[in-house]
Amino acid sequence: MRAEVSRGRVATQRLFLAALALCGAAAVSEADEAARRPNVILIIGDGMDDTQITVARNVLVGARGRLVLDGMPVRSAVQVLAVDEDDPARAVYVADSANSGTAMATGVVTSRGRLATTAGSDADVTTILELARDAGMATGLVTTSRITDATPAAFAVHIRRRGCADPTKMEGGERTGVSVGGCIADLQRNGGLGSISEQLAASGVDVMLGGGREHFAPPVEGGERSVADEAERHGLRVLSRADELAGIGPEERVLGLFGEGNMPPRWRGEGGREAEQPGPSLLNSLFWFLGSVELPEPMGCEANPEYGATPSLAAMTDAAIARLAADPSRGFFLMIESASIDKESHKRNACGAVGELQQLEEALASALAFAERVPDTLVIVTADHGHAAQIIPEESLFSGYGVPVYTPGHLVRLRTADDAIMSVSYATNLFYAEEHTGVQVPLFANEPGRALIRPMIDQPDLFEIMRTHLGL
Amino acid sequence: MRAEVSRGRVATQRLFLAALALCGAAAVSEADEAARRPNVILIIGDGMDDTQITVARNVLVGARGRLVLDGMPVRSAVQVLAVDEDDPARAVYVADSANSGTAMATGVVTSRGRLATTAGSDADVTTILELARDAGMATGLVTTSRITDATPAAFAVHIRRRGCADPTKMEGGERTGVSVGGCIADLQRNGGLGSISEQLAASGVDVMLGGGREHFAPPVEGGERSVADEAERHGLRVLSRADELAGIGPEERVLGLFGEGNMPPRWRGEGGREAEQPGPSLLNSLFWFLGSVELPEPMGCEANPEYGATPSLAAMTDAAIARLAADPSRGFFLMIESASIDKESHKRNACGAVGELQQLEEALASALAFAERVPDTLVIVTADHGHAAQIIPEESLFSGYGVPVYTPGHLVRLRTADDAIMSVSYATNLFYAEEHTGVQVPLFANEPGRALIRPMIDQPDLFEIMRTHLGL
Repeated sequence: MRAEVSRGRVATQRLFLAALALCGAAAVSEADEAARRPNVILIIGDGMDDTQITVARNVLVGARGRLVLDGMPVRSAVQVLAVDEDDPARAVYVADSANSGTAMATGVVTSRGRLATTAGSDADVTTILELARDAGMATGLVTTSRITDATPAAFAVHIRRRGCADPTKMEGGERTGVSVGGCIADLQRNGGLGSISEQLAASGVDVMLGGGREHFAPPVEGGERSVADEAERHGLRVLSRADELAGIGPEERVLGLFGEGNMPPRWRGEGGREAEQPGPSLLNSLFWFLGSVELPEPMGCEANPEYGATPSLAAMTDAAIARLAADPSRGFFLMIESASIDKESHKRNACGAVGELQQLEEALASALAFAERVPDTLVIVTADHGHAAQIIPEESLFSGYGVPVYTPGHLVRLRTADDAIMSVSYATNLFYAEEHTGVQVPLFANEPGRALIRPMIDQPDLFEIMRTHLGL
Repeated sequence: MRAEVSRGRVATQRLFLAALALCGAAAVSEADEAARRPNVILIIGDGMDDTQITVARNVLVGARGRLVLDGMPVRSAVQVLAVDEDDPARAVYVADSANSGTAMATGVVTSRGRLATTAGSDADVTTILELARDAGMATGLVTTSRITDATPAAFAVHIRRRGCADPTKMEGGERTGVSVGGCIADLQRNGGLGSISEQLAASGVDVMLGGGREHFAPPVEGGERSVADEAERHGLRVLSRADELAGIGPEERVLGLFGEGNMPPRWRGEGGREAEQPGPSLLNSLFWFLGSVELPEPMGCEANPEYGATPSLAAMTDAAIARLAADPSRGFFLMIESASIDKESHKRNACGAVGELQQLEEALASALAFAERVPDTLVIVTADHGHAAQIIPEESLFSGYGVPVYTPGHLVRLRTADDAIMSVSYATNLFYAEEHTGVQVPLFANEPGRALIRPMIDQPDLFEIMRTHLGL
């Protein structure tokens, strides 16, 4: 209902615009201004806390250099919130991208793993993207991960488990030796909305760009055609190559799938090296105050050979903005995620994370350039949660004691833009993948954010901030 | 020379004020405004990075609560800078309180351990406190550490090593089994300024409050009288009890020494517990993917019985502000440090650090209340460097794999104001004391900071910001 009313309003505006066009170019330009609706570009650096930013600054531009982020006029801090699934009154201090994406998208605090649904009670909650879409605005989701991954999905999908990426994942069960929960109640035959890829196909989002082709290949629930075919049936053109980004028509709706899974990161450590464990001598491993330790050799970052013809985040951003801004009378909501700051940090690959933060910087530069031209565009950059990684001293503060002092976790010693060495330690666990952390995260905005964003907010406040700016 | 000129200006202002007093009370009040000089209150949370703040927020007021810090209208981020002593062109990514105190106090980037002297070349550099003092302003240093410790000393002392706290420490040599460098060139007989306590005694600072009595007991270099006697000879009254804070005269200069060493922290872990190492089963210590692990029991924080009659940081702050503001025509510079956020984090005592962050909050509330009454008071809160501590998940993100996943460092599981459990891990090393980290640090300011402080600065920029506000 709401959508129809809003669409009616847009049609009236268009008519008004056309009438004014008869009065000549200058008048059109003024009317153009008047009919223009506000835009929001929300850029999420997955896991991009202050440590990740400092590491990237030191590597990319040096300690005294400045990132694009650093120059933004509005800075705030964001308290990340999560609750327990079984006892939603109980606070949980470390989030994942599902519950934190949900907080930003809906203003609702939920439990880890959930997408736009409530903890315990499993009710669907409306997202900012859905409000914008229903008000006739253009909408987009851009990511370097699978488009079905938690962050983009939180804006357009309602499901109890982030792992239910496609129709084959809905039953749960054993996967690579791990028991995973399914999403039985979300099956369409049980009255649910179906898997994540099925929901995205039907979401009405105008532009979706990322990886995750494999989740659009299986047949839809209870059907023969693939989810990709289903997406086409819903009016989406499916893209698969970077060069197709240039050809998106001004009214065309697209689903760009530029990889089977997540898109490969741009950078990697020299020769593919990641952080390594310091090697204590036998004596030191028996008596911590004796013997010696061998630290990983310093290294630089290099291009990841797997990156290949992958479109950059900035290229996807430019294409998405061009399409969504084609009709200024609609206004738009666009979420852009640099996803693998998180994924590479889980793998203790500092170079990978830095390269993806560089990708975010380029996408941000594009967004800011657009906002310069189109003033009522609110650009927000933030992270969804903190992540493992600490910059520790190259020379221990306690080196004077003459005993080996080193991290019990993994260590990478990175060459920086200062031509110096920076030690980064990963030590939240010794498992295959590091944990997220519960630190508050940074938020940056351009001028339109100044009146809306206090110096400290809770993560769900972002929903109201974007909604206010969009007038929804 | 500069000091004399400025003092002359102040005398003229006083004469002007006295003349105006003849015109009646209202005129005096206006003149009072006119003659009032600006003030700076710089509050340093030693090691107080965003993780420390998030930990304290969760414990003190809960995840959705707000600290006094959080409500400050201006927020910025500060890149911490340090350089190598032997090659001062080379960046070092993790600072200590000496070089970072120097950066804030002087605007000069130096090497770890140095106080207001240059790396390599050992030249003395003028501090903001000295500029203020020489311009006739009142000055003060307040800390919960020894008053000779790196942070306060960086504002009034010039010496190559922070360890040279008193005349007995100048030669260096073996100390508790560790070889420490001395400060031979800084001996007065070698043309230097002497040890830290001797320099503080002669510094002309109006109010110094903290611990470190033991460094004022030894005889001065080449003399018989103690450094404390020397301080009295320089016009300082030496205080030793909290109740003496109330009796400081409006023109009196004082040195308050409220402990032999550092002042004890207000809080500790339950029963004196600090973070502990998880206890893997024998099987798990042989095969990481097998067996089980015993984590430390959750705990709360409790009052530290050693705290006793120690004056609070807020009590010292109130006394210092009252004294320094007694003559508004002078204006003042006051540095206030909550020192043991750092010291307790080195010891993996999260409760100790939280209690000291609470002390900072109270001191800040006092400073802000003063600034409300006396508008041209710039209040800045920041940290000198980051510190070990990460909030990690109570339930690992990878618990589904069914293998024990836990920190390789030390862990504390703290009860919070939300009545939930928060896991904090310390894992920069397995030595007796954790390392600092190289993360950018937060900065907060009240309204007078808005026009002066950009959203991202380098730590040495603080010197110019304070100097500009004070008109020096």
